[in-house]
Amino acid sequence: MAAAKPVLGITLGDPAGVGPEITLKALAEQDIYDLCRPLVIGDSRILEQALAFSGTNLLIRPVDGPRYAHFDHGAVDVYDLKNVDMNDFQIGQISSLSGHAAFEYIKQAIDLALAGEIDGTVTNPIHKESLHLAGYPFSGHTEIYAHFTGTKDVTMLLVGGNLRIAHVTTHVSLRDACDLIKKGRILKVIQLTDNACRQFGIASPRIGVAGLNPHSSDGGLFGSEEAEEIIPAIEEARALGLVVEGPVPPDIIFSKARGGFYDGCVAMYHDQGHIPFKMETFQWDQDLQAMPSIRGVNVTLGLPIIRTSVDHGTALDIAGKGYASPEALLDAIRIARDMAVNRIKGRHAGEE
Amino acid sequence: MAAAKPVLGITLGDPAGVGPEITLKALAEQDIYDLCRPLVIGDSRILEQALAFSGTNLLIRPVDGPRYAHFDHGAVDVYDLKNVDMNDFQIGQISSLSGHAAFEYIKQAIDLALAGEIDGTVTNPIHKESLHLAGYPFSGHTEIYAHFTGTKDVTMLLVGGNLRIAHVTTHVSLRDACDLIKKGRILKVIQLTDNACRQFGIASPRIGVAGLNPHSSDGGLFGSEEAEEIIPAIEEARALGLVVEGPVPPDIIFSKARGGFYDGCVAMYHDQGHIPFKMETFQWDQDLQAMPSIRGVNVTLGLPIIRTSVDHGTALDIAGKGYASPEALLDAIRIARDMAVNRIKGRHAGEE
Repeated sequence: MAAAKPVLGITLGDPAGVGPEITLKALAEQDIYDLCRPLVIGDSRILEQALAFSGTNLLIRPVDGPRYAHFDHGAVDVYDLKNVDMNDFQIGQISSLSGHAAFEYIKQAIDLALAGEIDGTVTNPIHKESLHLAGYPFSGHTEIYAHFTGTKDVTMLLVGGNLRIAHVTTHVSLRDACDLIKKGRILKVIQLTDNACRQFGIASPRIGVAGLNPHSSDGGLFGSEEAEEIIPAIEEARALGLVVEGPVPPDIIFSKARGGFYDGCVAMYHDQGHIPFKMETFQWDQDLQAMPSIRGVNVTLGLPIIRTSVDHGTALDIAGKGYASPEALLDAIRIARDMAVNRIKGRHAGEE
Repeated sequence: MAAAKPVLGITLGDPAGVGPEITLKALAEQDIYDLCRPLVIGDSRILEQALAFSGTNLLIRPVDGPRYAHFDHGAVDVYDLKNVDMNDFQIGQISSLSGHAAFEYIKQAIDLALAGEIDGTVTNPIHKESLHLAGYPFSGHTEIYAHFTGTKDVTMLLVGGNLRIAHVTTHVSLRDACDLIKKGRILKVIQLTDNACRQFGIASPRIGVAGLNPHSSDGGLFGSEEAEEIIPAIEEARALGLVVEGPVPPDIIFSKARGGFYDGCVAMYHDQGHIPFKMETFQWDQDLQAMPSIRGVNVTLGLPIIRTSVDHGTALDIAGKGYASPEALLDAIRIARDMAVNRIKGRHAGEE
């Protein structure tokens, strides 16, 4: 029974951003409760405030931990950290108050997951400036999770539509990214990508590995990283029994993956993966002069616990206005649920 | 009258590839003859052979130059260079025969355009290996055009849907691309992009310039090219009166441009532009295990003459089978026609 409905901790994110609003909108969906048992980790008064502009009709039920939650649709269980002073709080504003609160939700979620009290975590967006004002020296969720779980080799996987794109490098300059294209790291990311696809329920994943240079260097005409690092990593992954193709020309691999040819892709640098991903998941509306549709989920691979996240930011400019879309959060919850179910299955299989 | 219907020279491309087939399919369309006066530059016997599998019902009319053409729909005028020995010719094969023939079509088209006998050129795909077997040391059309028109600063512009993407660098390694991100070159490409948009009929183009690094370096956190080269180029372009924004984060600019926010984009390196372009124009079909739909036009900017091209290759594997799609060639003809009409208008305006 537990296997079918994992308990997922959903952090509220920066309370001044769109997190509270999209959380309520997502938990207004009946089918989420059919899939999992969601527990918000945040502040009940922030959720009460968000009820007013979220257009949802829900009960907010503060609880003191997962064991006290009811998980029935219509009432939102919130592990209430009571850490926002509502007299000082301002929606849509950068502040140390919000940065501090957001950090505590994440830390609590990690602790609960490490203790096995929840089966996975889903995070709402935080604001880097508020986090820094509050005195936390992390550049984002990934670093916080890596630090408090003691993990070294983590990787960002983007999931949207048919695309599942993992990154060999991320937040470094393009020059530094070129220096970091090394066989060992590429092999590690291939393995993490294969493993993630299996957690998503794909039995025999086919992984495409992008080249670094245009046309994957056209046989060495422009660049040597394919011959020296990428091809050896692919060969080693194949020797381990994985189904891996590449180096695939970077301007072809993602079109094919979108069509279903690859189950997972390995991108060499941030924009090689993020550009096609956002072409697929971000839709600009020229009449509205806005991005009304933003999907896309960010999964941190390599951690001992499950972490999925929306791939958008706090959107402070539209916070509190009632038109933030919960699409990405709904996808993040569904993916965390699939990963948790497959982990639990794996654990039960191991016990037999 | 001439202004309304420019004469366009369409090179046949590699005779062993899909060029002859898609040329016939494109010229079977009545509306092309409403827009322009098309003259194929190639070999009439190759076109006769392609009639058999192209599914078109056309007359092939060999002529000795533009002045002898009739330009009436139903009969394809071909400037007949008679340079393919049909006894030796094999469709779908790499050969010096095909490389030699393809080169002569291009050279003839350039000469006619430089002499003002045609108003623009549209090229079908050639095969680099056949070209090299025939002894021509060029890596592609762009280099041939630059050489025979004596042009130094050329740029590749990709056009498909709402996307118009020019490149600061193209066929160099990613490391070399980083070294080539220089203010002077960026400014030149911004100007060429603005000018091209005007030739497409956009009166006041809005140009977006991508950053080089992730998040455009996030204020200098990863990489210095934005501050040192890109921003100064943008400022100089603005001082010249152009409407230019940037550096725009590379993973956002193309989603916005697709939605219509930017009329033209400047990409810093090959895949930064080619990845979003092919996400927009290439559709992989997993059931067919093929790319049945490939659109996209490649325009060479900076030349004294007009050159547009399909953005796909010779597709030797499907040549002669009858299912190559003329979509990209039709787009290339339409774009060359728009550019020619606007050039002719500009010339007439200058005469007044």
